[in-house]
Amino acid sequence: MQVDLNSDLGEGFGAYAITDDAALLDIVSSANLACGLHAGDPEIMARVFALAKAKGVSVGAHPGFPDLWGFGRRRIPFTTGEIERLVAYQVGAAQGMAAYAGHRVSYVKAHGALSNMAEESAEVAAAIARAVKAVDARLPILAGPLGAQAQATRAAGLTPIAEIFADRAYTEAGLLVPRGQPGAVITDPDEAAARVVAMVKAGAIITASGTPLPTEIGSICVHGDSAHAVETARRVRARLEDEGISIVPFA
Amino acid sequence: MQVDLNSDLGEGFGAYAITDDAALLDIVSSANLACGLHAGDPEIMARVFALAKAKGVSVGAHPGFPDLWGFGRRRIPFTTGEIERLVAYQVGAAQGMAAYAGHRVSYVKAHGALSNMAEESAEVAAAIARAVKAVDARLPILAGPLGAQAQATRAAGLTPIAEIFADRAYTEAGLLVPRGQPGAVITDPDEAAARVVAMVKAGAIITASGTPLPTEIGSICVHGDSAHAVETARRVRARLEDEGISIVPFA
Amino acid sequence: MQVDLNSDLGEGFGAYAITDDAALLDIVSSANLACGLHAGDPEIMARVFALAKAKGVSVGAHPGFPDLWGFGRRRIPFTTGEIERLVAYQVGAAQGMAAYAGHRVSYVKAHGALSNMAEESAEVAAAIARAVKAVDARLPILAGPLGAQAQATRAAGLTPIAEIFADRAYTEAGLLVPRGQPGAVITDPDEAAARVVAMVKAGAIITASGTPLPTEIGSICVHGDSAHAVETARRVRARLEDEGISIVPFA
Amino acid sequence: MQVDLNSDLGEGFGAYAITDDAALLDIVSSANLACGLHAGDPEIMARVFALAKAKGVSVGAHPGFPDLWGFGRRRIPFTTGEIERLVAYQVGAAQGMAAYAGHRVSYVKAHGALSNMAEESAEVAAAIARAVKAVDARLPILAGPLGAQAQATRAAGLTPIAEIFADRAYTEAGLLVPRGQPGAVITDPDEAAARVVAMVKAGAIITASGTPLPTEIGSICVHGDSAHAVETARRVRARLEDEGISIVPFA
Repeated sequence: MQVDLNSDLGEGFGAYAITDDAALLDIVSSANLACGLHAGDPEIMARVFALAKAKGVSVGAHPGFPDLWGFGRRRIPFTTGEIERLVAYQVGAAQGMAAYAGHRVSYVKAHGALSNMAEESAEVAAAIARAVKAVDARLPILAGPLGAQAQATRAAGLTPIAEIFADRAYTEAGLLVPRGQPGAVITDPDEAAARVVAMVKAGAIITASGTPLPTEIGSICVHGDSAHAVETARRVRARLEDEGISIVPFA
Repeated sequence: MQVDLNSDLGEGFGAYAITDDAALLDIVSSANLACGLHAGDPEIMARVFALAKAKGVSVGAHPGFPDLWGFGRRRIPFTTGEIERLVAYQVGAAQGMAAYAGHRVSYVKAHGALSNMAEESAEVAAAIARAVKAVDARLPILAGPLGAQAQATRAAGLTPIAEIFADRAYTEAGLLVPRGQPGAVITDPDEAAARVVAMVKAGAIITASGTPLPTEIGSICVHGDSAHAVETARRVRARLEDEGISIVPFA
Repeated sequence: MQVDLNSDLGEGFGAYAITDDAALLDIVSSANLACGLHAGDPEIMARVFALAKAKGVSVGAHPGFPDLWGFGRRRIPFTTGEIERLVAYQVGAAQGMAAYAGHRVSYVKAHGALSNMAEESAEVAAAIARAVKAVDARLPILAGPLGAQAQATRAAGLTPIAEIFADRAYTEAGLLVPRGQPGAVITDPDEAAARVVAMVKAGAIITASGTPLPTEIGSICVHGDSAHAVETARRVRARLEDEGISIVPFA
Repeated sequence: MQVDLNSDLGEGFGAYAITDDAALLDIVSSANLACGLHAGDPEIMARVFALAKAKGVSVGAHPGFPDLWGFGRRRIPFTTGEIERLVAYQVGAAQGMAAYAGHRVSYVKAHGALSNMAEESAEVAAAIARAVKAVDARLPILAGPLGAQAQATRAAGLTPIAEIFADRAYTEAGLLVPRGQPGAVITDPDEAAARVVAMVKAGAIITASGTPLPTEIGSICVHGDSAHAVETARRVRARLEDEGISIVPFA
């Protein structure tokens, strides 16, 4: 049995850093790499691609809104056409940096507000899918198994990879409990690790009430930008391996 | 007999415009497209790629320094490593937008201060060549026939395309007379057109004193951002065609 | 009888220009000056302040969202606290540039999406008023006479100046007919001028159906960024002066 | 006996942080506050001003080049006129945020490459002084006692405040040993603290060879962005107080 472990990396900019890229690249099998618009720059992109290559980690383009100040977390009212072009630009830029660093872009995962909007809106999700399809139709897209993006990705003829979050609670509909609600975020690394193991073994999202919602699970996201990111990622990996589940890139 | 006619296009940003892209795309055979760092954004890039495709115009990536305020004309002291990565990023982004718009990137031409530095410095020119080679080694690079960049490009195993400027005077060494010196810039469209015809027919750069310096001429640059840009480009093309010289993309 | 004529100026950025600042400064009595976040930079700000000073034109800070790409026209979901601080920053920057150029900031007018939001939302309008009050409580704020901003400005103890638009139709409620609806924008310079004269003489907004809604009119806005901006502004001024109405800054 | 202790603060941007502002504001008497061009944004500026006010810490505007990616450390070839306007803009913006937060701007200190250039070039230093004089001629300027900036500041009729660095070695001419040379940076907090005490008590810069160069010392800079910044600042302050030297803002 195997599963992928992904994390957002390379989210610095110039002198700024947020994620401990070197430490996380020793733990995850897939790295979602910021492409320079909400975070990231050619320097950090080249470093992460090169390090990921050396460690056998797959890299995905992680496009976001052009909002460095807001770290891509503000829902800026772009049209779906603008979103298509923002995504195409960033995937292309990531491919250029990958080629430069001797690695490749293996998938796409939307960042922050763009991701949240794609999980809710079939139109936004379809715009992302059109952009990916135009630039490289072989790239799969990481998305929640029960949201709008997985559906739109499949409808566009692309491959969605079902992703669950290690540190987030799920509603009875299988969506993320919104941040800010009690229990939405799981801060205890051991609890997060235990939940992941339970969900992977059950082949299901386990909701806040304990109900299993059967789904494929292609990848587990561990956040890279929280205080205990590295520790949580390490525990999740260790617990999965203890259960005989290998950590292997999905692409 | 044939030659290419190139111009910098797509140099707007959001609500801002500088170049009359639609008019110039009816005249030139190659369009140097700003990649979003000194000018350009995904919207204008998509529009220019699509229009160029429709009109049979080749498009080159036109990378510059990340200096929108300075329009890429400030010599920012980047290291050669940073320059490599800046160029790789922009060529990749242009390829992404080309794929999105159903067209392709056919060559690379450095912009503004980056270009000036590459014409003078073998190290800067080599950095650009390394970046292009890593991203797509088939792409030729537009460069002055007698400057450092053509040499470095060839040394890197890439193809330089010799470019002359329609509206600039040349020193006896075959380099551009620096802007600001008397006679450096040719503002009369007819004079510019006549000079181009003379140089193409002679197969030589003609210096300020009238001396011909024999060289290949692969492409003629007409500037897109001056007041009489469209008119000059039109005259240059008309005069060349009058002489039986076809305007054909080099790549 | 007298009235103020205002226009948005200084909306360039680096090599980019949109407004014909020199021509408009010969026509208007008040110039709304972009402060560097949605448009404008220290160079153009210094030039406009100096030229306005020389021509006896008052200058207002014209703060907008930090969205150069969107020219401040995207409704970015900033909190009211963030809006307060964005406005305080920009008014301060404008005051610094005014002092540098030997002029002063005489009022504040919100730009684009920020202005639209302030006309609709008492909370946004109050945030702007708090910022202006903190930085310089003597500064009046230009606002539509019948929208949320005039009310919130007054409630904050600041002075709203009632502004009407020369080139826009009004609903029966005295609000702008949204762009995109038929007749929303008046493109004929003579028609715009005639409407302005009629409204100023009537002391009323005249709605699309011809109903006069009595209101103070402190200033008339002529847009600076349209194709016929200078011509429209000139006609509006000429027609007002023909009627014996002087063009005088309100502050 | 008393001296001022200053540190660069507020050097974050959006989600990014570099300096531990809250901790440093408990130690220093003056905070140099980034103004949004090389670092900083209205949010962090408002927070630092408010916290500094609450803790009785003076705040200086800390203008730098508009180069967020380079953190203001790249020597961008701006003209002296552009530098004047960049500084005026940033000092004004800082004053706006100070007014908003109920505090005030008490002095100016140039950042990074701008500071380095001002210490070497009388023209750059004079440009900064002209800007400060225009915006608020009462503001003193922090500068090295033996460099070009102190002289140019005095020549402009403004007050230079002599600043020494706690963690940097000095040449026999009293200038900073360039980073990269052996011994240029003092990383041991105790050594830094001991040096500061020796220099303040001697009223002299002590060069690498141990020679005292007598000078006024108005302020001591402790860097805020190094790994041991807070610890070094704390030791410097403690050692000075142990010697009966009070830490008091100079302005």
